[in-house]
Amino acid sequence: MRMSVVLFDGFTALDVVGGYEVLANVPGIEVEIVAAEVGLVAADTRRLGLHAYRRLADTPLTDLLYIPGGPGVFNSIHDAALLAAITRLHASATWTFAVCNGVELLGAAGLLRGKQVTTNWFARDRVAAHGARVEKARFVRDGRLVTAAGVSASIDAGLFLAGLIAGEEIAKTIQLGIEYYPEPPFGNGTPDTASTTAQAMVRLFEESSVERLRDAKAPFERSSP
Amino acid sequence: MRMSVVLFDGFTALDVVGGYEVLANVPGIEVEIVAAEVGLVAADTRRLGLHAYRRLADTPLTDLLYIPGGPGVFNSIHDAALLAAITRLHASATWTFAVCNGVELLGAAGLLRGKQVTTNWFARDRVAAHGARVEKARFVRDGRLVTAAGVSASIDAGLFLAGLIAGEEIAKTIQLGIEYYPEPPFGNGTPDTASTTAQAMVRLFEESSVERLRDAKAPFERSSP
Repeated sequence: MRMSVVLFDGFTALDVVGGYEVLANVPGIEVEIVAAEVGLVAADTRRLGLHAYRRLADTPLTDLLYIPGGPGVFNSIHDAALLAAITRLHASATWTFAVCNGVELLGAAGLLRGKQVTTNWFARDRVAAHGARVEKARFVRDGRLVTAAGVSASIDAGLFLAGLIAGEEIAKTIQLGIEYYPEPPFGNGTPDTASTTAQAMVRLFEESSVERLRDAKAPFERSSP
Repeated sequence: MRMSVVLFDGFTALDVVGGYEVLANVPGIEVEIVAAEVGLVAADTRRLGLHAYRRLADTPLTDLLYIPGGPGVFNSIHDAALLAAITRLHASATWTFAVCNGVELLGAAGLLRGKQVTTNWFARDRVAAHGARVEKARFVRDGRLVTAAGVSASIDAGLFLAGLIAGEEIAKTIQLGIEYYPEPPFGNGTPDTASTTAQAMVRLFEESSVERLRDAKAPFERSSP
């Protein structure tokens, strides 16, 4: 089973690696990292670069389509070639796995009408505007579509999907392999119970995403545009 | 404040990205990815490559030394140049942050005598053999040394360190930013309460690490040896 992780400029690294670290360890899943062009793709911080080794144009189909989110989504929802590739890969995929505001990319491609999904807490309205029914949940399954809430939720959603693909015993073994027995040092909760100060700060940060990505340069050569 | 993340062949991606995603968002922290050579470094799965853009030899000091773990540690503990660089960077760092069996690298460098640490559950004996007092904990602080249990514990430990550096309010804002309100789909626990089947499978996987790394080739050119 081939899992194709789609990168775009300004992705969030943990959106990719959280689910990757789970799903790459499912027996029989072979991971590939794909993007518009072969080469380094810069994460949102501009301080980390992941290598894409296959072009989307050279990826006619896949078994598991993996779409991360990140501030780059604000630009990527206008990228017609990316949306066309997502539409094509989703059509034949056994599973589509979208994380965080990466779920918006499916919406922008017109693939979410009537679908039950989750997404990053601050992206709920934008995803709902594409006709999806957005739940306040860590992960949601609707048929062959599994969606995750923000960033680190890719781990929980990845374990959930690993359970669907390979069974609960394998998923629990992977949970041990990545030692996922979380203890957030300042307690758990939900985005909706976070302090209004924290919510306001994160929203401000998100609203400045496009400017930050435009103005910051990665300290490495990027071969993707 | 400069945070230097040290890569070596066969690192585990989530060991790096879990803590990076937290600490890169602490105001004033600038991340750099360093390795023996500039270029792509292959993760343990051989399906993901991260770009190192500074040589360890060109990194005389840092403020926050970040050491991930992974199957590659089995080889790297014999890499004298790496251990010398870790010793040098640790000497001047305000903080040293080591994850998973990456803690063994500090031990192999002779830096753990009498230190209180945690590590990946299956690496406890090997770390203790270097003179450390190993706790069964998600993260442990001993002075300027913060250690994390396996892989995903880099997130919890990163939030803990973010709180020490920038205060609890900032750490909680980052927790919201990465939406770290975990809900493991098959429940929480500890490595020690995992099923004996899962424990045996993970140990088998770990014991074959050196062979797996040697035999698998990454589908991209590696410029690091």
